[in-house]
Amino acid sequence: MVRVCAVIMAGGVGTRFWPRSREKFPKHLLEVIGKGTMLQNTVKRLEGIVRDEDIFIVTNRTQKAQLAKQLPQIADENLIVEPVVRNTAPCIALAAYHVRRVDPNAVMIVLPADHLIQDVDEFKRILRVAVQTAQESDALLTIGIKPTHPETGYGYIQINPDDGPQNPFFSRGVFKVKAFAEKPNPQTAERFLASGDFFWNSGMFVWRVDVILAQLRKCLPDLADALERINGAMGTSQYQQTLDLTYGMIRGISIDYGVMEKAPTVYVIPGTFGWNDLGSWDEVARISGKDDRGNSITGSVVQIDTQNCLIYSPGKLVAAIGIEDLIVVNTEDALLICRKGRSQEVKEISDYLKRKQMTEFL
Amino acid sequence: MVRVCAVIMAGGVGTRFWPRSREKFPKHLLEVIGKGTMLQNTVKRLEGIVRDEDIFIVTNRTQKAQLAKQLPQIADENLIVEPVVRNTAPCIALAAYHVRRVDPNAVMIVLPADHLIQDVDEFKRILRVAVQTAQESDALLTIGIKPTHPETGYGYIQINPDDGPQNPFFSRGVFKVKAFAEKPNPQTAERFLASGDFFWNSGMFVWRVDVILAQLRKCLPDLADALERINGAMGTSQYQQTLDLTYGMIRGISIDYGVMEKAPTVYVIPGTFGWNDLGSWDEVARISGKDDRGNSITGSVVQIDTQNCLIYSPGKLVAAIGIEDLIVVNTEDALLICRKGRSQEVKEISDYLKRKQMTEFL
Repeated sequence: MVRVCAVIMAGGVGTRFWPRSREKFPKHLLEVIGKGTMLQNTVKRLEGIVRDEDIFIVTNRTQKAQLAKQLPQIADENLIVEPVVRNTAPCIALAAYHVRRVDPNAVMIVLPADHLIQDVDEFKRILRVAVQTAQESDALLTIGIKPTHPETGYGYIQINPDDGPQNPFFSRGVFKVKAFAEKPNPQTAERFLASGDFFWNSGMFVWRVDVILAQLRKCLPDLADALERINGAMGTSQYQQTLDLTYGMIRGISIDYGVMEKAPTVYVIPGTFGWNDLGSWDEVARISGKDDRGNSITGSVVQIDTQNCLIYSPGKLVAAIGIEDLIVVNTEDALLICRKGRSQEVKEISDYLKRKQMTEFL
Repeated sequence: MVRVCAVIMAGGVGTRFWPRSREKFPKHLLEVIGKGTMLQNTVKRLEGIVRDEDIFIVTNRTQKAQLAKQLPQIADENLIVEPVVRNTAPCIALAAYHVRRVDPNAVMIVLPADHLIQDVDEFKRILRVAVQTAQESDALLTIGIKPTHPETGYGYIQINPDDGPQNPFFSRGVFKVKAFAEKPNPQTAERFLASGDFFWNSGMFVWRVDVILAQLRKCLPDLADALERINGAMGTSQYQQTLDLTYGMIRGISIDYGVMEKAPTVYVIPGTFGWNDLGSWDEVARISGKDDRGNSITGSVVQIDTQNCLIYSPGKLVAAIGIEDLIVVNTEDALLICRKGRSQEVKEISDYLKRKQMTEFL
């Protein structure tokens, strides 16, 4: 039977969820919607597809302890610590060498740690189709999300909906990728949405580990060389030093740009399973359950004539009078009050705090 | 020389400044605008007019310790503790007996503890004119405030601006009171403002102690009897018990309604000294200094496109994005977010907390 391994990329330092997310507590380590942290739920969604000992998690030094605490079922040697952040291609390459040690022909699933998926059954069905396809072929698969609105914050993947004759996986709902598109402007996003041939690039991938390693060698030879050096030191006393030095000199590049856009056997499997990357407080507000005045409340809130607000204040009483369309996030040491629709600007607050060296708030 | 005593009424349990004001920390014990608490500033404004040993402060059991801490210059025997709150007439009557012990012909100034006065020199000038007038006559004087807008939250005092012939104090700017008017509706308030004959009732009074005691006896004989009983026990071991029992049975009534509207020799001395009773957060916002975007900020606040907000958060970082016309008050244990113009509704929050027995927030 095929061995299926999963790599969860959990090294992000999300600043868009400030003041809840912090360097030590990025989004994936938080309980944002419903029960369990985003990372715990990402692991949980693999039940029945990947065994715990085959789940690898790429993280960083700052977050590792908290991550280990949240996932007692994952062995310490399965926590891969990136010395520095270098975008997705190096991260995936580093993890691929760990997967190859488990089984050089393993199917490898790559997942971001901080996405919300509402229809877990449908997600698992899609994942199983992808695993089967990767096992049977040299396909590099990416999971595409059927767009629900003309989002300008994501990359898109274009398919040819009539690619049946040249596509051996057509009957499974797997399409050959025609093109990758960068984050579009609003008009282009509208066109993408209207055409029906474009899907959001979710950052979720499925492939055989030998296939991705071969493509990394071909598309990013410098990266492959560096990773071979690191891999050669694995299990020796030189490992940490080699990793730190070599990884530090690697050029950061995304797997999409570095491999997917160049490789010949790239497929997309479109999914519709209530996916949301929860990229901002506005997304959380959109997704959260609401009372009959449109408010999403966490904590003790006394309201008078208050509507369409997200109020998160688990530790402190809030009284709201005559307010609407606000996002209020009240943590131990900081308070955010943001007009709805402007939560992308939360990043500017983090940048400001960084500039002012107010690091205790980062 | 005439002995001048002052009575400062500091028993209020202001709920309109929640969450800053609490039962133990009402408005007058807070630093609301500028330096010093409202009570400390009330005492300070008497410098050169009343000696510290002639200042009496009426308070309650809950607040006494904090009050004593804020006013080390006031002797403990000058802190008069009301066992229960019974409106202004009983409070003033109780204090009058203390003043009479100092000097049965003393001039007595009565002041609320929680008003803002911006032009202290002009206030003192007015007070000196009132003291002189009270000393020379049987006048009951009230200080009237020249209205700046058609306020519906105050009582008004009407004068006859041409009362010169019958008024011995006309040349000093003292007028005979023609009528007291309750809090008006908006149209009536407009009419009052336009006429020029109406002044806000500030709750500040000046009279000789023998004059007010005689009028209390005449207008409110039951109250006078009760106070005589209390006074009779003063200095004995029975005092506290007598005070608690007798004062508890007194009917609460205001000095305006109980005495001023009935007594024959009632005068008003109009003043223009930047008076504000700071009756709500909106008043504070109106009075506070503002930056060039109209914001009044206390604490560390990072703003993006934020205007006309009052943000008070001395202990916690606030990030504000795209908000306007809000009052934000962030204390140790509670957060208020209120649309400007609606801060009168803060009282409803207190009422709600009381109903729900969330007494830790009161």
